[in-house]
Amino acid sequence: MSGSFAFSVLHTDGKARRGQITTPHGLVQTPAFMPVGTTGTVKAMYTDQVRETGADVVLGNVYHLMLRPTAERVARLGGLHTFMRWPHTILTDSGGFQIMSLGALRKLNEDGVTFKSHVDGSKHYLSPERSMEIQGLLGSDIQMQLDECLKLPAERSEVIRAMELSARWAARSKARFEELGGPQKGQGLYGIVQGGTDIELRLKSAELLTDIGFWGYSVGGLAVGEPQHEMLAVLDDTCPALPEDKPRYLMGVGTPDDLVKSVAHGIDMFDCVMPTRAGRHATAYTRFGKINLKNARHADDPRPLDEESSCPATRDYSRAYLHHLVKSNESLSGMLITWNNIAYYQDLMRGARDAIATGQYNDYLAACTDGWERGDIPAVG
Amino acid sequence: MSGSFAFSVLHTDGKARRGQITTPHGLVQTPAFMPVGTTGTVKAMYTDQVRETGADVVLGNVYHLMLRPTAERVARLGGLHTFMRWPHTILTDSGGFQIMSLGALRKLNEDGVTFKSHVDGSKHYLSPERSMEIQGLLGSDIQMQLDECLKLPAERSEVIRAMELSARWAARSKARFEELGGPQKGQGLYGIVQGGTDIELRLKSAELLTDIGFWGYSVGGLAVGEPQHEMLAVLDDTCPALPEDKPRYLMGVGTPDDLVKSVAHGIDMFDCVMPTRAGRHATAYTRFGKINLKNARHADDPRPLDEESSCPATRDYSRAYLHHLVKSNESLSGMLITWNNIAYYQDLMRGARDAIATGQYNDYLAACTDGWERGDIPAVG
Repeated sequence: MSGSFAFSVLHTDGKARRGQITTPHGLVQTPAFMPVGTTGTVKAMYTDQVRETGADVVLGNVYHLMLRPTAERVARLGGLHTFMRWPHTILTDSGGFQIMSLGALRKLNEDGVTFKSHVDGSKHYLSPERSMEIQGLLGSDIQMQLDECLKLPAERSEVIRAMELSARWAARSKARFEELGGPQKGQGLYGIVQGGTDIELRLKSAELLTDIGFWGYSVGGLAVGEPQHEMLAVLDDTCPALPEDKPRYLMGVGTPDDLVKSVAHGIDMFDCVMPTRAGRHATAYTRFGKINLKNARHADDPRPLDEESSCPATRDYSRAYLHHLVKSNESLSGMLITWNNIAYYQDLMRGARDAIATGQYNDYLAACTDGWERGDIPAVG
Repeated sequence: MSGSFAFSVLHTDGKARRGQITTPHGLVQTPAFMPVGTTGTVKAMYTDQVRETGADVVLGNVYHLMLRPTAERVARLGGLHTFMRWPHTILTDSGGFQIMSLGALRKLNEDGVTFKSHVDGSKHYLSPERSMEIQGLLGSDIQMQLDECLKLPAERSEVIRAMELSARWAARSKARFEELGGPQKGQGLYGIVQGGTDIELRLKSAELLTDIGFWGYSVGGLAVGEPQHEMLAVLDDTCPALPEDKPRYLMGVGTPDDLVKSVAHGIDMFDCVMPTRAGRHATAYTRFGKINLKNARHADDPRPLDEESSCPATRDYSRAYLHHLVKSNESLSGMLITWNNIAYYQDLMRGARDAIATGQYNDYLAACTDGWERGDIPAVG
């Protein structure tokens, strides 16, 4: 059930793909949603719960972990799998996205990027090579190249510069990944396609990366504020330019609607803080759409969020109780709603996989959308 | 396994008692520690976890629940057991202690007390009768009379006045409890012994209450800042003045050391926010004493808090990971350390019950104290 990084497409339905990734820590069924475990914890959840929702893989953030507890410390403690008690697949990002978000606190040149820690203001340095070293120390199964992720909108010349720099960093990342023995350990490295919403630049980026050759390909720099149709247009042109036999990972996306539509364009993997962050802010994702548990309509409602769910948080706790916990600022509200959200995202991906396997993905997509548009069940009480 | 309120002493060892309380929602093995579920949740824990640690009973706070979500709403939703998903025994306090803590925000007379809500500043009223009505609506198995809990130190005349008022309120509470059919529902009502640290007043209070007659007797107004030896001196004289065939509940106490010593004086039940509150502030209670997980000595320690524990939080997570979660302000730290603490308190009471049953309570008390005094295992790394 585990081995060297490999990917196979088991079924296709239109452009949608049902696949399977093998890693040193197990199998990842795709399309897959990866809960975000920024600092080595999927916030407010036990890893056993995360696993029970059906997640095959979680994401760790290099930026956060390199600052605290540091990659060296995690390595001494047996690696990130042992440290956070997640014996299944782990994907790490490269640190690029978070560092680029630091704005004035960071300084970038050809070699790499210096930045100040949000924890204590101390100075740090990250290069493509150092990011690979950190990800190697963490022991992640699927690793990301360091890239420069621009804030959009930006001048076209800037988008070109960042995309070309990211491609040069991609080559350096691969070289260091190989020096560190990543392939021998069965780990995989993904290149990251950049280029903003400019199709020509996206295709150029895809070409540069496929020439280098990676175990998988990420689409970065999307879902940063642009309308959904622009994001989907980029995917529409970018996905066909990527190797069919490698997984495609749309980074930092998104809403349930973003996910099912991106799957239709050929995306295999997703990560997003949305379900965990929303869970701590009283928003539940369900097949009835987004439900705001702060709303007084739930105060006397003895029904659960969704009685047909197999997730205990979704099925066994009344909306009235969840509303009460939210109003009382009780941590159990974040625990339960996050659990519901991660379970719903996993259910959504499980449904997508089943639908692709039986050639019914369009129907599935329509049924999901109908459910969200119909909205929540009528209030009681 | 459930029925009308009843208590039997199964074993004694010196003054220590091993007993069993029957309630409409099950059996409570004593000595018992009751985790505090103030607003209908033992903070940062799932009720299944609370149960698995060995808790037979949790405590709900009338003051918090009457304000939000209100007793009437909880009743409409099926009662507190259903609302919070705890099908076992529930004890509720009377609201007195919290209201007395409001200081200038409350006004007390013979009839009852008016106070302002900490939630929204709205005005509320509580009397002995109203407290019984609220506890009846919540459906709690073990209910408390409303009492006046003074801030100590206080003038002796004040202590007398409050103790006598509490005794009159005790009689009114019992009358209303009976009118509401509490006894027919199998519920029990406890009187609360007051009188500060003045033995004469404590004995007078005990006499007044036993003359009225209750299902159990609480000792209130202790652990409010006085030295432990004063608290134990009060118990030493008060416990023998209470009926041998009724449970004795020391309210709001305390540290593990307070618990095992109070058991030696004949106390059967405890509640305290300490293990849950400490859990959210990085302090773990263990057989090695209190462990501060903020301390950098744990940063590289791969060992769990206590590898011999049967609690997953205590046994399966490294101190290094717990330290990292604390430093990163992750909610999982509060979840895990609270879980450890509640499990430790339950282990402590389980050990006490076993020791009393075999006539070895003094040895048990000495062994616990030795462990705490020896302190934590030496640091590594």
